[in-house]
Amino acid sequence: MSTIIAEIISIGRELLIGRTQNTNAVWISSQLLSVGIEISRISIVGDKVYDISRAVLESLARRPSIIITTGGLGPTYDDLTVEGIASALKIPKTMNPKALEQVKSKYQSMGLEMTPSRYKMAMLLEGAEPLMNTLGTAPGMMIEYGGTTIFSLPGVPSEMMEMFSSQVMPRIMEKVPRKRFLERVIVIEGIPESSLAPLIEEWMPSSGGVYLKSHPAGKEPSPTLEVHLSIIGDNFEEMKSLLSRAEESFIRYVLKAGGKIKEAPR
Amino acid sequence: MSTIIAEIISIGRELLIGRTQNTNAVWISSQLLSVGIEISRISIVGDKVYDISRAVLESLARRPSIIITTGGLGPTYDDLTVEGIASALKIPKTMNPKALEQVKSKYQSMGLEMTPSRYKMAMLLEGAEPLMNTLGTAPGMMIEYGGTTIFSLPGVPSEMMEMFSSQVMPRIMEKVPRKRFLERVIVIEGIPESSLAPLIEEWMPSSGGVYLKSHPAGKEPSPTLEVHLSIIGDNFEEMKSLLSRAEESFIRYVLKAGGKIKEAPR
Repeated sequence: MSTIIAEIISIGRELLIGRTQNTNAVWISSQLLSVGIEISRISIVGDKVYDISRAVLESLARRPSIIITTGGLGPTYDDLTVEGIASALKIPKTMNPKALEQVKSKYQSMGLEMTPSRYKMAMLLEGAEPLMNTLGTAPGMMIEYGGTTIFSLPGVPSEMMEMFSSQVMPRIMEKVPRKRFLERVIVIEGIPESSLAPLIEEWMPSSGGVYLKSHPAGKEPSPTLEVHLSIIGDNFEEMKSLLSRAEESFIRYVLKAGGKIKEAPR
Repeated sequence: MSTIIAEIISIGRELLIGRTQNTNAVWISSQLLSVGIEISRISIVGDKVYDISRAVLESLARRPSIIITTGGLGPTYDDLTVEGIASALKIPKTMNPKALEQVKSKYQSMGLEMTPSRYKMAMLLEGAEPLMNTLGTAPGMMIEYGGTTIFSLPGVPSEMMEMFSSQVMPRIMEKVPRKRFLERVIVIEGIPESSLAPLIEEWMPSSGGVYLKSHPAGKEPSPTLEVHLSIIGDNFEEMKSLLSRAEESFIRYVLKAGGKIKEAPR
């Protein structure tokens, strides 16, 4: 398991009314997992200052190292992420000169004037650092608070992904020791999940720190079960060997109980 | 806006490591919205008693009428939803006779014996009511706590959807006045979101309770913008007329500012 606690707060009413899949959170989770950081909570809230602020306060109470927010940075009246974080942290907003420069030069290059809605996007928290939005207009924001670094990214997926890869990931890598995540999937047939359950419990003491989760696909009594074996660590060779050992020993349990291995890594 | 506060707690590590889109929460949200109930928070946590319990306690502190959990009801060691809710509410678990009957008859029909893992699925909170799982083996659970009804549904989408439609929705409809949700989408071109922002603010006092949200698609300076106008209420004719009036007046603002209407409901 990772020692870093990281959380995502996804902001946007479209995520709460069944319109939009939260692909941003899934993408960020998989990016962080590739360096051994496992997200421990994803919270989705709408476009209200109180809801955003409350989600941030609740998250801070869980003492994460990293909070990543997505959405709510744009120019409209319901883009309220900076406002919500300001209210949570009790830090005033201020016109950020670097952010203002970014926004101004974006609109200048389009031949458009600055307006209050455009100035709004450069209003960040005092002490915050803007993140450059190379694909869009609203800057992101990074702020340290207690032991937590809060990264606020846009909700438009392309802008979010670019900003995450070029600016968030490098900062996280500076802060935390790089770990890796390894996983193997075994597909099992001929044994119901409820029969597998006691085998898993018998097997667990010999897991060597490998995490096992079964995912049913199809119905009892003869479902297909996907069993995911995974490990997070910093020594790649050791992780591979622990995973192989766990896989072999688990497969022995399954065969003994009459299950069939339909697919295994090797 | 709906007067009912409803939340979803999605349980399962696969939702936190970038493997699985949370399609269950999106589906439930859209089902509830069709009767005028808007989800105000979705929380995703992993398969740990402490995390589940904490999410439930935090949700209860927001005083929702309804909490729907998905996942973690199966037979394996990491199916811990009932345990997590028991820990949050400080209510002991007990073998539920109705749930036991369901589980037993399922396995009997498959010609399988009862085992501790199978008995586990019938262990519910004292005072809880089981929900029948017609497509799978793990019963769901309904429990009243203070002013909140907690529904716990399986994570397998087909089982969850069937249980929600046949047993959860009817119970929610008994409890809350039926409302409706209406929405129209206008697609606008030729006006950047940051130019639309002040128009929206000018227009808002005349919105008649219609909620407006703009979704950028494409990049400034000439993006396509989707504007969603929506209303929740109980008088269908009045809602339609408010929506039409809001739509007309908003389109006037857009045209006056040089925007083009690419698509509108009529």
